[in-house]
Amino acid sequence: MMPISPLNKNTLALIQAKIDNKTKPLGALGALEPLALQLALITEQRRQKKSSIDSYSSDDDSVNQISIKAPVMLVFAGDHGINEESVSIAPSAVTRQMVLNFLHGGAAINCFCQSNDIALTVIDCGILQSISHDELPLLADDKVNKVELIEQRLGAGTHNFSEKPAMSITQVEQGFEHAKQLIKTKVEQGVELLLLGEMGIANTSSAAALMSALTSFSVDECVGRGTGITDEQLDKKVALIEKALQRISSLDSDTLNLTQKEVLMLLAELGGFEIVQMVSAILSAASLSIPVVIDGFIVTVAALVAHRLNKNVANYLIFSHVSQEKAHQSLLEELMAAQTVSDISSQPLLSLGLRLGEGTGAALSLPLIKASASFYNNMASFESAGVTV
Amino acid sequence: MMPISPLNKNTLALIQAKIDNKTKPLGALGALEPLALQLALITEQRRQKKSSIDSYSSDDDSVNQISIKAPVMLVFAGDHGINEESVSIAPSAVTRQMVLNFLHGGAAINCFCQSNDIALTVIDCGILQSISHDELPLLADDKVNKVELIEQRLGAGTHNFSEKPAMSITQVEQGFEHAKQLIKTKVEQGVELLLLGEMGIANTSSAAALMSALTSFSVDECVGRGTGITDEQLDKKVALIEKALQRISSLDSDTLNLTQKEVLMLLAELGGFEIVQMVSAILSAASLSIPVVIDGFIVTVAALVAHRLNKNVANYLIFSHVSQEKAHQSLLEELMAAQTVSDISSQPLLSLGLRLGEGTGAALSLPLIKASASFYNNMASFESAGVTV
Repeated sequence: MMPISPLNKNTLALIQAKIDNKTKPLGALGALEPLALQLALITEQRRQKKSSIDSYSSDDDSVNQISIKAPVMLVFAGDHGINEESVSIAPSAVTRQMVLNFLHGGAAINCFCQSNDIALTVIDCGILQSISHDELPLLADDKVNKVELIEQRLGAGTHNFSEKPAMSITQVEQGFEHAKQLIKTKVEQGVELLLLGEMGIANTSSAAALMSALTSFSVDECVGRGTGITDEQLDKKVALIEKALQRISSLDSDTLNLTQKEVLMLLAELGGFEIVQMVSAILSAASLSIPVVIDGFIVTVAALVAHRLNKNVANYLIFSHVSQEKAHQSLLEELMAAQTVSDISSQPLLSLGLRLGEGTGAALSLPLIKASASFYNNMASFESAGVTV
Repeated sequence: MMPISPLNKNTLALIQAKIDNKTKPLGALGALEPLALQLALITEQRRQKKSSIDSYSSDDDSVNQISIKAPVMLVFAGDHGINEESVSIAPSAVTRQMVLNFLHGGAAINCFCQSNDIALTVIDCGILQSISHDELPLLADDKVNKVELIEQRLGAGTHNFSEKPAMSITQVEQGFEHAKQLIKTKVEQGVELLLLGEMGIANTSSAAALMSALTSFSVDECVGRGTGITDEQLDKKVALIEKALQRISSLDSDTLNLTQKEVLMLLAELGGFEIVQMVSAILSAASLSIPVVIDGFIVTVAALVAHRLNKNVANYLIFSHVSQEKAHQSLLEELMAAQTVSDISSQPLLSLGLRLGEGTGAALSLPLIKASASFYNNMASFESAGVTV
């Protein structure tokens, strides 16, 4: 795996002083201030890394502007064998229908990427049936042109994980390699901020199973209603996940200290093709000092898995929102507590009662992230503005 | 005063059906769905009014797209005599310094208006000393060109309301007329969404006094720390407001049924020049069927005063955020309860721990408002996208 630098805190005091000297009372911009601190630290990290490669170093000790250019939304899609047990409100065919909807510009994530000026890429990680060329929109249509489709299929949907492992370790490794290359390419193209989303009918089941296996939370505490299942379906979802966890109960109960091999095995047992690739995307972005905007429950579980593989990833995560999925709040608290720079990401940016996925919460949070960078980069200091508080 | 139409609910069922048929589970976009309903109802109202003037009417019963073009942020500034009692962290001179900071593009509100593409107008409603021509930025600077300064001064700061009325009824009436003309002009220029902000050292004192006089909340419940005063200053702030309220204790205790004359008298006794003009701006916008985005505590108090003058204003208000000022949450709850279309504006859009004013929360919420319009206007229906849930 690629190494991830622990966030270098050498410039923290300089950055905080710059924030505190802006023309506003101390702390008056609330959650946007720790976010600016985090973005500035990550930007510095990236620059220092680049400087050491270019044998160039800045000749003063001032801190640089935050840079989060060319944000891109990556929506990872995959199908889930567990849905043969009807654990979702929808049949698995809907995953593919929604991917087509993304490609034709008709979904919520299209609207939010468009209204917030975010490039959108959809990655087929293994939906039941791949998209054929003649299903793609005509190039003449300006709007839908903006959506890119990338095929990085690991299969035609996972196995039913309540019966057997969702995939093989080889598939996990292949997924990791695919996503690593994708992030590398995007960063080479100039992307400085990554936003993640997902589509996969029944993927809250896989996510809940992984959360339970990787934390001290019980299955009950990890399972929610997804996009809106009944009480009966909820009970069934819990029972199926408990059944799967019994199969792999030999693991260390100290979930913070699982070996890399054990975590990869859990991904193979319980994961989804889109979850696997998101885990790798998060790790790869952090290894390149690129901040990653985390969406709802499923993306947050991918961040949890990434954290269990490399603790240094935590400081590179920006939590966009808390969704209506029951376990999301407690999972976010666990990951926020793992951030080792005091005060960064002290809360998810939005709490709008969303329960859609697709990256919608992440896309909606981008203007707040940009606003945070904007006040840090552009606001006057007391001295420069002649304000005498 | 200008009449405000109660929101016409004839198209409510059609609008809700359109929202429910978008390619997403029912209600999965959380707070953005009631917001879309509100924006669609207001847009319809504006179109119907325009149709009746133009003798034109649509020949089918379908509902139109939401239209919120050319959003403008109006920041109303004024000084407060009560600050001779040192009820704020800053001297009154800072109001003027911050107005200059706005005009030169260096304040938080400049950054957020710029990053969210909002035109910014600053209105001098009566700061201590007006801005002279040679203090304005040079026209050559692209960035600061965008900030417009309008003079609608009602005086050089209000009187100390703990000693005597802050202003005369004539000044209130003059302020109402100024703001009414301003809104009329902006709407004629094509503005379809209004965002409000304010600047005025010590204006939380005036706002808290008005809130207490116009609701059943005690002074203690209405007074907070503003941008960050000490315990001692807080006690003094409460005592001064109580003293002022004793002077005008003859009012009806049923604060929902005060006469228009009584409300205007309260504004004269306790108000600020910027608060008076914001009350009129809100009423004027609503009378023209223009939605108004409400910022923090002081703007929300202006909305409360507007509501006490005309109950129909409530449905035109969009609550952008809940701030750190203690009384803001309870005031928002009172105003949200006054909205008569079930479900609209069921919560403030943001909760970021802001305590700055200037319209910063309103500006930060605009992308969510645009996203709400975007999903309503552009998202595919199940039928059009071929999704079979």
